[in-house]
Amino acid sequence: MDDDSHENVVPGSDESLDTPDVHGYEFRDGVDFQELLASYATTGFQATALAEAIDIAERMQEADATTYLTCTSNIVSSGLREVVAALVREGYVDVLITTSGALTEDVIKTQKPFKMGSWNADEAALREQGINRLGNIFVPSNRYVWLEEYLYDFFDDFFAEEKTRTPTAFARELGATLDDENSVLKQASDNDVPVYCPALTDAEVGNFLYYYRQSYDPDVDIALLDDYETLIEGGMDADTTGLIAVGDGVPKHHAIMTNLFRGGADYAVYISTGMEGDGSLSGAPPTEAVSWGKIKADERNYTQIQAEATLVFPLLVASAFFEN
Amino acid sequence: MDDDSHENVVPGSDESLDTPDVHGYEFRDGVDFQELLASYATTGFQATALAEAIDIAERMQEADATTYLTCTSNIVSSGLREVVAALVREGYVDVLITTSGALTEDVIKTQKPFKMGSWNADEAALREQGINRLGNIFVPSNRYVWLEEYLYDFFDDFFAEEKTRTPTAFARELGATLDDENSVLKQASDNDVPVYCPALTDAEVGNFLYYYRQSYDPDVDIALLDDYETLIEGGMDADTTGLIAVGDGVPKHHAIMTNLFRGGADYAVYISTGMEGDGSLSGAPPTEAVSWGKIKADERNYTQIQAEATLVFPLLVASAFFEN
Amino acid sequence: MDDDSHENVVPGSDESLDTPDVHGYEFRDGVDFQELLASYATTGFQATALAEAIDIAERMQEADATTYLTCTSNIVSSGLREVVAALVREGYVDVLITTSGALTEDVIKTQKPFKMGSWNADEAALREQGINRLGNIFVPSNRYVWLEEYLYDFFDDFFAEEKTRTPTAFARELGATLDDENSVLKQASDNDVPVYCPALTDAEVGNFLYYYRQSYDPDVDIALLDDYETLIEGGMDADTTGLIAVGDGVPKHHAIMTNLFRGGADYAVYISTGMEGDGSLSGAPPTEAVSWGKIKADERNYTQIQAEATLVFPLLVASAFFEN
Amino acid sequence: MDDDSHENVVPGSDESLDTPDVHGYEFRDGVDFQELLASYATTGFQATALAEAIDIAERMQEADATTYLTCTSNIVSSGLREVVAALVREGYVDVLITTSGALTEDVIKTQKPFKMGSWNADEAALREQGINRLGNIFVPSNRYVWLEEYLYDFFDDFFAEEKTRTPTAFARELGATLDDENSVLKQASDNDVPVYCPALTDAEVGNFLYYYRQSYDPDVDIALLDDYETLIEGGMDADTTGLIAVGDGVPKHHAIMTNLFRGGADYAVYISTGMEGDGSLSGAPPTEAVSWGKIKADERNYTQIQAEATLVFPLLVASAFFEN
Ligand SMILES: NC(=O)c1ccc[n+]([C@@H]2O[C@H](COP(=O)([O-])OP(=O)(O)OC[C@H]3O[C@@H](n4cnc5c(N)ncnc54)[C@H](O)[C@@H]3O)[C@@H](O)[C@H]2O)c1
Ligand SMILES: NC(=O)c1ccc[n+]([C@@H]2O[C@H](COP(=O)([O-])OP(=O)(O)OC[C@H]3O[C@@H](n4cnc5c(N)ncnc54)[C@H](O)[C@@H]3O)[C@@H](O)[C@H]2O)c1
Repeated sequence: MDDDSHENVVPGSDESLDTPDVHGYEFRDGVDFQELLASYATTGFQATALAEAIDIAERMQEADATTYLTCTSNIVSSGLREVVAALVREGYVDVLITTSGALTEDVIKTQKPFKMGSWNADEAALREQGINRLGNIFVPSNRYVWLEEYLYDFFDDFFAEEKTRTPTAFARELGATLDDENSVLKQASDNDVPVYCPALTDAEVGNFLYYYRQSYDPDVDIALLDDYETLIEGGMDADTTGLIAVGDGVPKHHAIMTNLFRGGADYAVYISTGMEGDGSLSGAPPTEAVSWGKIKADERNYTQIQAEATLVFPLLVASAFFEN
Repeated sequence: MDDDSHENVVPGSDESLDTPDVHGYEFRDGVDFQELLASYATTGFQATALAEAIDIAERMQEADATTYLTCTSNIVSSGLREVVAALVREGYVDVLITTSGALTEDVIKTQKPFKMGSWNADEAALREQGINRLGNIFVPSNRYVWLEEYLYDFFDDFFAEEKTRTPTAFARELGATLDDENSVLKQASDNDVPVYCPALTDAEVGNFLYYYRQSYDPDVDIALLDDYETLIEGGMDADTTGLIAVGDGVPKHHAIMTNLFRGGADYAVYISTGMEGDGSLSGAPPTEAVSWGKIKADERNYTQIQAEATLVFPLLVASAFFEN
Repeated sequence: MDDDSHENVVPGSDESLDTPDVHGYEFRDGVDFQELLASYATTGFQATALAEAIDIAERMQEADATTYLTCTSNIVSSGLREVVAALVREGYVDVLITTSGALTEDVIKTQKPFKMGSWNADEAALREQGINRLGNIFVPSNRYVWLEEYLYDFFDDFFAEEKTRTPTAFARELGATLDDENSVLKQASDNDVPVYCPALTDAEVGNFLYYYRQSYDPDVDIALLDDYETLIEGGMDADTTGLIAVGDGVPKHHAIMTNLFRGGADYAVYISTGMEGDGSLSGAPPTEAVSWGKIKADERNYTQIQAEATLVFPLLVASAFFEN
Repeated sequence: MDDDSHENVVPGSDESLDTPDVHGYEFRDGVDFQELLASYATTGFQATALAEAIDIAERMQEADATTYLTCTSNIVSSGLREVVAALVREGYVDVLITTSGALTEDVIKTQKPFKMGSWNADEAALREQGINRLGNIFVPSNRYVWLEEYLYDFFDDFFAEEKTRTPTAFARELGATLDDENSVLKQASDNDVPVYCPALTDAEVGNFLYYYRQSYDPDVDIALLDDYETLIEGGMDADTTGLIAVGDGVPKHHAIMTNLFRGGADYAVYISTGMEGDGSLSGAPPTEAVSWGKIKADERNYTQIQAEATLVFPLLVASAFFEN
């Protein structure tokens, strides 16, 4: 067997490779979930990224890193709300950064649940029934009617002394009014974890603030720069920082941008469905942030899991934080 | 030929279907680009969505709709900056909504270009050279050194009379200082197009505001509610509204959320790389917004093109706005 | 609080919704992984799809369905090879359908492991070293040198009596020569599970068959129709069928297409990264197959998990097959 | 302005960068589509990939490269069928590689069109009406009833002399019976362009071959190795090769795999919606093929456009093949 075409084969050996063998879980004697997750390290593709993320999150804790958890609003729409609340409750989070829908939906859920729905629905018909669709989750509109009244009462107190407040003050004081151990805001409030939310107007909070100004007090306002200062300086004061970004958008960027001031985050885990090829911040992998100095250039300390968060975030939390 | 398995075939005919035949461009006599794009209507898959988007954008103009253009920051990082500026310049945009990076990068580009780069780079090495990667675009750090000085000068004027300002005021007054016909901010300023940007802190603007407060004036601030009010009321006052969302995130949501107050946008075109299955606002198609009353329930009037925007937005703009 | 804009709110209640509340895992007393996975049912987004998939796979077993497992080649490149082998070993699979790379890589792994690698590599340099990259897995070229010799020996026997053979015969007889309990082909051979692979030429098997014909026997050949007949008739003879598609492409289509002859598969679980909007077979959700009669129209019996398989297939297998 | 945090800024300049400035189309005097597409080179993100693809396809022609066009079946389902036929008709294609659905659907369309449909449909209802959904395209089942009769007649001739035939013979002889200038198979037949289709059974062709063997002739068969030999040797004989992969899967791999025998394709353009992070062949960018020696290691000669093909393939064809 010898011909020209074979010349194109370069018979490389593995002598140069000292990496582990690719090998998965064998299911020999039932299932040991911890071992199953451990096998992800050598399963390849995204399983390996999840194993890396677990390892990084464990090392973040060992290093006593100031931990930033960022999430998009839909994370709180979903059952990941309880997972985020648990992390905050147990003291694993130092800074929370999110978007406005997360706040309103967390408050609603303290009183009225969201309901399982379906992706395929007749949306015009849903509209008639007053049911809002959020992926495969249904949110009846009466939730927002309730929220409106609740927030007006809250605003009366919130703006009583000062007319211009910050998003962190909003989250902290609102959280203090809540009575639900599964509430992210309540846990954050109880555990002194600041909740940053620069685009606070971009959800029902904004809408009800608009109405509140129309009907009760035209002078109330939300201002941003005190929060930004605290966030930056918290990062500069920290010995070590680590971030876990569940979803992308403004929250993720806010965390890495303010870590720039300290020369980059020491640890970073992204869970993302973003598309790198669109040039977006949301799709940009941790390496892009390294070029900007937003994450430090030690590749053992950052990774990205390309996955929808509900599938993998509970596993990451279970393995890295709640087992031992 | 007759057997049991054939019973499972239902020999439907097309009598019930009065839709066009699927048929693409034949390239018979060279290329007529307008006809080629017209053929997208019957090409199927996303080509059909682009054809629908062109049709909707044309009908938005005929209906004299108040037009919202929303874009993410990376749109301005890319060469779509010039396309957005052209739309504003020619009076096709009434309201712009974006995120903070769009503003800083538009200003930088009035003086110093961004450079073509590549996706695969050694980011740690780039970091050493002071080159920031943004997808396949490279941004040397000296751009931000220049911007910092420029903004400090601007801030002196901007905060001279009032210490607390809004994002729209920031964009309008900053735009007025610029000297570049391809600048989005300058065109917006010249054409009285408000630029909304609730998360104004989340980019270098925020960083330089932080430094400015440290070094020059600790009392300056950015407040959000006046802008939100104007945005909502502009929507309520409009007879007809239409929106074109180039990318997703906060800008898209800001446009549809404030259209809720008027019972939904009349027309909507999304260009998105979002994944519907992650339950995100970014991945949610127009139908989801219909259930919330953010877009009106006439399915001929909304569509989504699943595509990276640089590929299709110039074609949409060319066909719907700049031809004939 | 009363104004025009409020007229646009339809205050729907949840009386009409009898679905479960959205609620996630609370991490109250450490971690019980079975309960954690059970909580996915009410977590929303893709977690709910994984919970549905587990439920469907359990009901497939209760119904004693003839079970088709389809997978793409990279599944066997990864550590999911051991998971597939385990399912076959324990008798949970009746029909395997895959593509050609799965066969060659399974054979190589009986002797020489694949190695963990990385996504970002200098591919021209790898080429010089004779290391092939497959995602974040590295495959030194000497594996293929070994395989070539192994297959020539095998071909001598395989084609000794008949010059024209089928892909299932190839897989069965090759599997019988292997000595590795983690081999998919060996387990399939030992457990009389046919392995269908219509595009058998499209990998190194094809290449070595080409050389074999050049050097040893120009008359050997691979023919397809006997296999297609057996596959179709196996489906028609089955009382109930169910399929689990790990990845898409030809294997998934082969399973649903041949289930058409019996009026559709009774159960179907897809694990896919495909994009619905590209109109591909790979991206098409189970509902599209319902319109063709390839899957039966009972929506409780099919689902799709939008995820990279290494993340979720081991969990599905653990919960639905190896726990009780 | 001077503090610690500034130390983290590395003020890189652009002296080291001799790449073009990022700059898009300005829409100054209406629209010149050729200039608009030319501006994609400096627009960034995927627009730049499209510009690269056009450049590579032009250089492939200048180099007189043997051109492989590969496509998935849904490309022929869509209006891209006419685009592929045009390329073949004008002599721009030397080798076509596809999957089985492309063949059946091309034949149907010579007599009966596919119809525009919609993504959201009640599939169980469609099933009752005998309408099959294929993305946003509807295919009434009577098309397949017609095709069945047509193919039985064809099979009588096709298998008259030899009982075992190849996919390329099937495509060539079938194409010769067709009467439609927009038919891919007819153009391929008329222009002596071989159509490779290893998984020929995996569509209605396979189904009707199954019935044909049941009812008319149990001995007919399809064999693969002659085709694979011709495909490999065609590549080895070529001075220069280039490939354009429209969609992924078996067709793309078949082209790059057989180019391995000659040391890699000289030019390659991929149009793909695949996800790199799933480790699939479909998602693997050209660089991965470089490590295997399937594409030559000159990065100016390959690119990938991350896009749904109906959006960009007509533009690529227009610019690179049908202009000037
Ligand atoms: N429930 C809601 O989603 C909701 C409700 C009210 C208001 N809003 C507003 O909409 C705006 C945009 O929302 P956003 O900025 O929170 O994020 P987003 O929903 O726009 O998502 C941003 C990105 O995060 C990633 N992502 C999102 N969900 C993910 C998941 N499940 N798994 C992995 N990655 C995921 C994707 O890359 C996505 O493009 C915000 O201002 C928000 O307040 C949202
Ligand atoms: N019309 C049909 O799609 C059809 C009809 C009958 C049979 N089949 C059979 O189904 C099997 C699988 O189909 P396939 O192998 O042709 O490909 P596929 O539909 O499975 O697609 C393979 C990959 O190609 C890429 N792709 C597909 N469409 C794209 C697009 N529009 N733009 C960009 N990228 C795209 C994606 O990465 C996708 O995962 C084949 O055996 C085929 O014969 C398909």
